[in-house]
Amino acid sequence: MASSSSLTLSQAIFSPSLPRHGSSSSSSPSLSFSTFSGLKSTPFTSSHRRILTSTTVTKQQFSVRASAAVETLEKTDAAIVEKSVNTIRFLAIDAVEKANSGHPGLPMGCAPMGHILYDEVMKYNPKNPYWFNRDRFVLSAGHGCMLQYALLHLAGYDSVQEDDLKSFRQWGSRIPGHPENFETPGVEVTTGPLGQGIANAVGLAVAEKHLAARFNKPDAEIVDHYTYVILGDGCQMEGISNEACSLAGHWGLGKLIAFYDDNHISIDGDTEIAFTEDVSARFESLGWHVIWVKNGNTGYDEIRAAIKEAKAVKDKPTMIKVTTTIGFGSPNKANSYSVHGSALGAKEVEATRNNLGWPYEPFHVPEDVKSHWSRHTPEGAALETEWNAKFAEYEKKYPEEAADLKSIITGELPAGWEKALPTYTPESPADATRNLSQQNLNALAKVLPGFLGGSADLASSNMTLLKMFGDFQKNTPEERNLRFGVREHGMGAICNGIALHSLGLIPYCATFFVFTDYMRGAMRISALSEAGVIYVMTHDSIGLGEDGPTHQPIEHLASFRAMPNILMFRPADGNETAGAYKVAVLKRKTPSILALSRQKLPQLAGTSIEGAAKGGYIVSDNSSGNKPDVILIGTGSELEIAVKAAEELKKEGKTVRVVSFVCWELYDEQSSEYKESVLPSSVTARVSIEAGSTFGWQKFVGDKGKAIGVDGFGASAPADKIYKEFGITAEAVVAAAKQVS
Amino acid sequence: MASSSSLTLSQAIFSPSLPRHGSSSSSSPSLSFSTFSGLKSTPFTSSHRRILTSTTVTKQQFSVRASAAVETLEKTDAAIVEKSVNTIRFLAIDAVEKANSGHPGLPMGCAPMGHILYDEVMKYNPKNPYWFNRDRFVLSAGHGCMLQYALLHLAGYDSVQEDDLKSFRQWGSRIPGHPENFETPGVEVTTGPLGQGIANAVGLAVAEKHLAARFNKPDAEIVDHYTYVILGDGCQMEGISNEACSLAGHWGLGKLIAFYDDNHISIDGDTEIAFTEDVSARFESLGWHVIWVKNGNTGYDEIRAAIKEAKAVKDKPTMIKVTTTIGFGSPNKANSYSVHGSALGAKEVEATRNNLGWPYEPFHVPEDVKSHWSRHTPEGAALETEWNAKFAEYEKKYPEEAADLKSIITGELPAGWEKALPTYTPESPADATRNLSQQNLNALAKVLPGFLGGSADLASSNMTLLKMFGDFQKNTPEERNLRFGVREHGMGAICNGIALHSLGLIPYCATFFVFTDYMRGAMRISALSEAGVIYVMTHDSIGLGEDGPTHQPIEHLASFRAMPNILMFRPADGNETAGAYKVAVLKRKTPSILALSRQKLPQLAGTSIEGAAKGGYIVSDNSSGNKPDVILIGTGSELEIAVKAAEELKKEGKTVRVVSFVCWELYDEQSSEYKESVLPSSVTARVSIEAGSTFGWQKFVGDKGKAIGVDGFGASAPADKIYKEFGITAEAVVAAAKQVS
Repeated sequence: MASSSSLTLSQAIFSPSLPRHGSSSSSSPSLSFSTFSGLKSTPFTSSHRRILTSTTVTKQQFSVRASAAVETLEKTDAAIVEKSVNTIRFLAIDAVEKANSGHPGLPMGCAPMGHILYDEVMKYNPKNPYWFNRDRFVLSAGHGCMLQYALLHLAGYDSVQEDDLKSFRQWGSRIPGHPENFETPGVEVTTGPLGQGIANAVGLAVAEKHLAARFNKPDAEIVDHYTYVILGDGCQMEGISNEACSLAGHWGLGKLIAFYDDNHISIDGDTEIAFTEDVSARFESLGWHVIWVKNGNTGYDEIRAAIKEAKAVKDKPTMIKVTTTIGFGSPNKANSYSVHGSALGAKEVEATRNNLGWPYEPFHVPEDVKSHWSRHTPEGAALETEWNAKFAEYEKKYPEEAADLKSIITGELPAGWEKALPTYTPESPADATRNLSQQNLNALAKVLPGFLGGSADLASSNMTLLKMFGDFQKNTPEERNLRFGVREHGMGAICNGIALHSLGLIPYCATFFVFTDYMRGAMRISALSEAGVIYVMTHDSIGLGEDGPTHQPIEHLASFRAMPNILMFRPADGNETAGAYKVAVLKRKTPSILALSRQKLPQLAGTSIEGAAKGGYIVSDNSSGNKPDVILIGTGSELEIAVKAAEELKKEGKTVRVVSFVCWELYDEQSSEYKESVLPSSVTARVSIEAGSTFGWQKFVGDKGKAIGVDGFGASAPADKIYKEFGITAEAVVAAAKQVS
Repeated sequence: MASSSSLTLSQAIFSPSLPRHGSSSSSSPSLSFSTFSGLKSTPFTSSHRRILTSTTVTKQQFSVRASAAVETLEKTDAAIVEKSVNTIRFLAIDAVEKANSGHPGLPMGCAPMGHILYDEVMKYNPKNPYWFNRDRFVLSAGHGCMLQYALLHLAGYDSVQEDDLKSFRQWGSRIPGHPENFETPGVEVTTGPLGQGIANAVGLAVAEKHLAARFNKPDAEIVDHYTYVILGDGCQMEGISNEACSLAGHWGLGKLIAFYDDNHISIDGDTEIAFTEDVSARFESLGWHVIWVKNGNTGYDEIRAAIKEAKAVKDKPTMIKVTTTIGFGSPNKANSYSVHGSALGAKEVEATRNNLGWPYEPFHVPEDVKSHWSRHTPEGAALETEWNAKFAEYEKKYPEEAADLKSIITGELPAGWEKALPTYTPESPADATRNLSQQNLNALAKVLPGFLGGSADLASSNMTLLKMFGDFQKNTPEERNLRFGVREHGMGAICNGIALHSLGLIPYCATFFVFTDYMRGAMRISALSEAGVIYVMTHDSIGLGEDGPTHQPIEHLASFRAMPNILMFRPADGNETAGAYKVAVLKRKTPSILALSRQKLPQLAGTSIEGAAKGGYIVSDNSSGNKPDVILIGTGSELEIAVKAAEELKKEGKTVRVVSFVCWELYDEQSSEYKESVLPSSVTARVSIEAGSTFGWQKFVGDKGKAIGVDGFGASAPADKIYKEFGITAEAVVAAAKQVS
């Protein structure tokens, strides 16, 4: 049992990301698995990470020390720290210089805090970047990615070798221009778009707090890590960071520690020109503990003391404002925007080498620095081994909890989970798909241990409450209903963090479909970073009625159909809603959006979970030989209209096929034979109907077909009236069908 | 002179919005112009708005009192105030009840502050909702729109008659489910999506501060109004409001006064579940003056005193936190989420009538209340008349400034402005369209008095600085370069406020194209509310290179092409950039987006301002008889590739037409004859190339054509390399052309 389960676990957590474009296929990580011991509980020998001499410690000793390490923060020899910090600076300088592209300023300024985090504070296993109980680090100021790459390189991650540093920002490189979790093992989330990272970090800390509350026992602290984040002035200005940080304070995420790189420079120059608020006071108002390190350039002990203090505050997240000099060490460019986003140039690199007393060739890591960092590989392996042993014990004592946690860690779903999905017949009561969605959510929460989520203050409209659970709150973090408040963008990014914490955490989040406009930045990062968030988006068309055009999505379906790696579902009834959820749960590396109706819809004959999973499928057809007179295509609430129109046309003797196009992206994945069986090329008489923009529909209706939709803004009135006035009716479909056939 | 200019002015400011859908055509405002006297300086007789007895005042007396009125805030008879407040409450209750849809809770709680604002504080002319120097009011919590409709009704606006109240949220109504400036004269901006309104209000206050600084003289304060806004807990939670309010504090917008309806209830229940930050402390940290009115339900004098205090603070915006009871007066539903967004129900309406002692029929305005409010019509007319007289004097003394201000007020552009647009020949140096854009921006700023804007901390990348102007800052508000910081969403919404302040204010704003994802909520409101903002979006494709997929737009062109009433431009060179700007400036009721390259592009033969203004046009063609062998379609940076491919194909003896599709929406507006002349239906051999999603291109390439594009995420590498690896090349176009022809 132990060995088979550990195998599963190791397979899952090592699963590399799918190649996303030409470059990544040639850059799949070649991880060394040698030190990984799965969940096997084996004795181990290791030098303690904080003690440089090699000492054999007993398991118990280690355990105590490992958890106490962060409080100790013993000072390493000052000279080697300084040298290590300058190594980080020059790796960044050299890589940017070679690429002639990138951002050297932040790594030069943040090298001290980066060094202390990766060398003295964080627990991780460089040879298994996916070890579950590692501390998480997020560089929210993602443009400074060379800081993180340099640290991963020194720490011994296989993903960042010297050759990688030399190929920074080049085709096929494993270290792209901004941190990407799917390219570089060791990078937790994808950052660069400002503010996303701090919100992701909130999500990572939510995941830890939730899992710790659910799974830790008085005798087994099996979930226990910190989340660290570095954010800059840019992140601080973004609204998303205020949203996420307000929630972090509300939730009391004591194990979230944010370093605010306060360097007073952004791209346009001194932050005085646009950013004069009192950030520390704002964070205090948000319920954070705030510490100010006034000398972030050389004040190592101040940084260490701040981290110690932050860890002592257990009921609040901590923001450590670290005042630094951007481009520290560059005699002529430090403290100016010119060092933010461009290579220093050969002359200034030389001047910086002289200024910091750095005699080495580009990309050189001095031997003593190398040697100093080399302990992280055995220590990291030991940490993981110890944790695996702990887990094995835990599994013996608490088999049910262990099974759930294992499912969450590996992403392996419990056998037969999909049987929980509800099915419907035409006799089932008509209902809004938002309500049918709630039936699915509640069914899934019962069988999927990592299923949790909530709404941006619209739970009672989005129908997203899990009835068997309470609210995830500061003092009830074991619960699974997240209350995001009216913070859509923060919500999406927090869910990205939750999803990327563990493969089996399946977060969903909800608002009105039109307000995806508020969270699109986070949704795109879901798609790019392969975070399988489920977006439950109700009130999906003019069918919401009286709230009017500000609340009625029009172009939103098209806008997501055009976005890579995201599934845009628009189910028509209960079976299709269940089908959408089935795929959404299975696709752990692709986010899904469900556009759901506010209004009641009938359960239609011919719909099915299997059909929905194909994206487009035949719902009804009275023709033979794959040659109907006309094909009517509908989605969501308009499939009913297509069905009604078909009835009319059939009465007039026509052969009619009705096709449901619940998810274009899934349909595109089907074989050409299947597609030909649904939309035969010989049948050009095609009419689509969808209460949204017709943009893109020509792809399916073709040059000779007709797309019925809404290409202007909506209106405030009862839904039925708007449908009629806008011509989204069976009559319009019948007329169009006659026109094209 | 005076009379002709006043005519122009009155015409422009009365110009009703274009109908947007079926409903609005039947609901065009039928304004009474009787009291409008243009800019004519005529003597007047009026009762002072604050003094209920009819007293003839001299012009000078009035002038002094009008400007002093806000400091006076004399208490009106308490009984009539109470009755007026209850009238507001019941108009809201009755309208929501009749519609059986809407949000009665906010109007019931905010009626006192609403009453004081519209009856005692604000200066406006109900018979000319567009009078330039009016105070602006924004209901950021737009769902509570019945508050504003009730106030407009009482104040005498023609747009909200009793019949309108009875048709709330119905087809063809002038008072839709959320406030819409294009439907209801008297509504300044379109709100509902939370947080937009407070950011719009910041924009309105920016406009006032800027225009006052530019045009006021020691002897003529010609621009002088306040901006008031009511926002709720929902607005406060949204990141956009923090962004905008941080800027408001930074800019010291002393004439912005925000009422925070602190009712502790949002849709999901008590705000305790998601919103426990200290809002007042946050606003203080943002540089605001903060006042707390503890009893917003009946504390009229507290509210009055707070406004007085707010006005006395001239260097900071003020937030008045007004603690209210949502649904005040409803015995069983007050202070609960159930009163937020649903009709009370007949029984509870009855109970509320009893509770508040309201014996009247639905929609009844008691005579004494009517009479009390009736003075606003003559007083408003007098205010405008006085201002017109002041302006006439100003015009005499300062003709140049007056001409500029008039252009800003009316939106009438200076004659010949378009001659300032630069033109280019194929010999002009190759350049990035972002640089060509800057040439246009600087050319336009010289000739358009209302042209101003800036970037979200990317001025030096977006190339948006106006070189002849300094920065708009707290102490230099007369300048025209806005520094938004990294706050895209706030930036867009602030620009909406600026654009909707005066027809001739033409704001532009800028970031990387991919970050439209952060501001899409505001951009959609630009489109819906007919705010002619110009979005300068650079780094428009994989062509930005090394920054990688987080920064490379893919689906963004398609996503905006699908959005109603917004022009998505992708110019290929200098002439097309100038053409895009020409249209963008002219289209004052339609926002424009310019997607601009980071990389250098050649000036192409055959491009023109006129061609670009048609959206799609022929750049070159070696065929005759409108029947080329193949049509190659390109946009932006790929037009050059299409041109190169055409050269290749011509060498092989083909006849080839190259078409530039700089703006699909403008092309769609052309006649079918013109379209047939560009894309003849007989020529089905068509290839498009665009470094973005192919989604939607089938519309132009047809069933038999081929669209070349990028349907996955980008990559981090030098641009040329990515283009080659992704197959965005002339070779690929040539191959496709051979395939389809």
